[in-house]
Amino acid sequence: MSEPVEIKVRGYHLDVYNHVNNARYLEFLEEARWHYFEGYLDLPRWRREHGLVFVLVNVNIDYLLPANLDDVLEVTAEIKRIGRSSVVMEQLVRFKGTDKLAARADITFVMADEKAGKAVPVDGELRARLEGLIAQS
Amino acid sequence: MSEPVEIKVRGYHLDVYNHVNNARYLEFLEEARWHYFEGYLDLPRWRREHGLVFVLVNVNIDYLLPANLDDVLEVTAEIKRIGRSSVVMEQLVRFKGTDKLAARADITFVMADEKAGKAVPVDGELRARLEGLIAQS
Amino acid sequence: MSEPVEIKVRGYHLDVYNHVNNARYLEFLEEARWHYFEGYLDLPRWRREHGLVFVLVNVNIDYLLPANLDDVLEVTAEIKRIGRSSVVMEQLVRFKGTDKLAARADITFVMADEKAGKAVPVDGELRARLEGLIAQS
Amino acid sequence: MSEPVEIKVRGYHLDVYNHVNNARYLEFLEEARWHYFEGYLDLPRWRREHGLVFVLVNVNIDYLLPANLDDVLEVTAEIKRIGRSSVVMEQLVRFKGTDKLAARADITFVMADEKAGKAVPVDGELRARLEGLIAQS
Repeated sequence: MSEPVEIKVRGYHLDVYNHVNNARYLEFLEEARWHYFEGYLDLPRWRREHGLVFVLVNVNIDYLLPANLDDVLEVTAEIKRIGRSSVVMEQLVRFKGTDKLAARADITFVMADEKAGKAVPVDGELRARLEGLIAQS
Repeated sequence: MSEPVEIKVRGYHLDVYNHVNNARYLEFLEEARWHYFEGYLDLPRWRREHGLVFVLVNVNIDYLLPANLDDVLEVTAEIKRIGRSSVVMEQLVRFKGTDKLAARADITFVMADEKAGKAVPVDGELRARLEGLIAQS
Repeated sequence: MSEPVEIKVRGYHLDVYNHVNNARYLEFLEEARWHYFEGYLDLPRWRREHGLVFVLVNVNIDYLLPANLDDVLEVTAEIKRIGRSSVVMEQLVRFKGTDKLAARADITFVMADEKAGKAVPVDGELRARLEGLIAQS
Repeated sequence: MSEPVEIKVRGYHLDVYNHVNNARYLEFLEEARWHYFEGYLDLPRWRREHGLVFVLVNVNIDYLLPANLDDVLEVTAEIKRIGRSSVVMEQLVRFKGTDKLAARADITFVMADEKAGKAVPVDGELRARLEGLIAQS
């Protein structure tokens, strides 16, 4: 697993309930995904060379415990399952230094050909590279 | 069903892909929920008098079609299922004047006692009121 | 002056102080600018045909009164001054049905040639069109 | 000057122009202010004990150069001037490892008594503490 992203909860992350707003978590998750793929430079480069883009198709997020001002969160991202046409990542938002989770999410994306604008099967070299990425992490 | 909320896609809703960003949809959904409950003033008033708050526990959102600059979206919210301790709403993000969906989501929340900070069963008058709300819509 | 944009303050607009967050106002202002220019379709079309883009160079915003949950705000945009190379708009965020302002801002932008990536003088037909826009409003 | 906050530009920071959106900069600035005051723990503690809050009254921000995907920004905050009733900070958003600025801003705030809900003069111990903070930085 790559290093988690650390986010300290600030005043502008909160909403009327003085908890981190539900939409803001999706930015935290996206931050951790950018960070994760950055850790495996081969894949982004190869992907760009082949004109492939990640397209998010589903987010399934459980809000488990409210996060408050000054809490320090650690957000992880990890590939969990590679299907024929889609990939599922698991992302955790943990209170730093504890086992407690503020949130956890399954993120499903497909790989699409940027020009054709449609999903491609996850096979051949693409599959090998994504599987390699699981092995490394 | 209450009137949908209409949102015109602006430059600041987009991200690097020039589509509405995945996190922004959760703000669109939240906007539609505020609007929905506002249409049934009895419930919010009664809820406040009884010290109950909505607590979001899960969002399961499918991103179906990208929404681009100047698209006009209609966002709906509707209670779909009332369980023993939780309530599920279905929310649609439709391209105005079409049957096409940019996104659809199931939103699960519980009702919690604000002071005790924990979920209460959805029964008695609370259940009756939520069911009444389905009937009205 | 074009019609103001109406925004009802929701839970996700607020921050730790339970007021609309300072950054969120800039989205409210941007929303009103999109709306304003949309009201004068000739200009956006002409601008695109000439490969010109608006580039924001300064925002000077006074936060005057806190806006709270359920407040209804009206946000206006109006061209105030056309200089040799820049244009200043004044934007007001008013509590609906009152004379009270939550915020007011001066917004300075330049027009830039999209390809060359640099500002162009505000003269000739561009100037005439912007001045026409003041006259109309 | 306290350590700058480092922010890597991600896809969700951008807007239709594929630059960091103007409103997002205000979150970057706010992040740097939280970080700055955190570096001087005495002041936040003393402030809370005395029921004082920071109230933002003006932001004057120059957008100087567009920031793009993968740029690394360093955001600073520094008290620049202490008036009779207000304090001005200067904040810079610099491209890391260069002298180039993406943005710079003057931020004006007052100190307010949280209960009375109104500004207090910046004198006595409050003034001494803010001046101490300049000396330290």
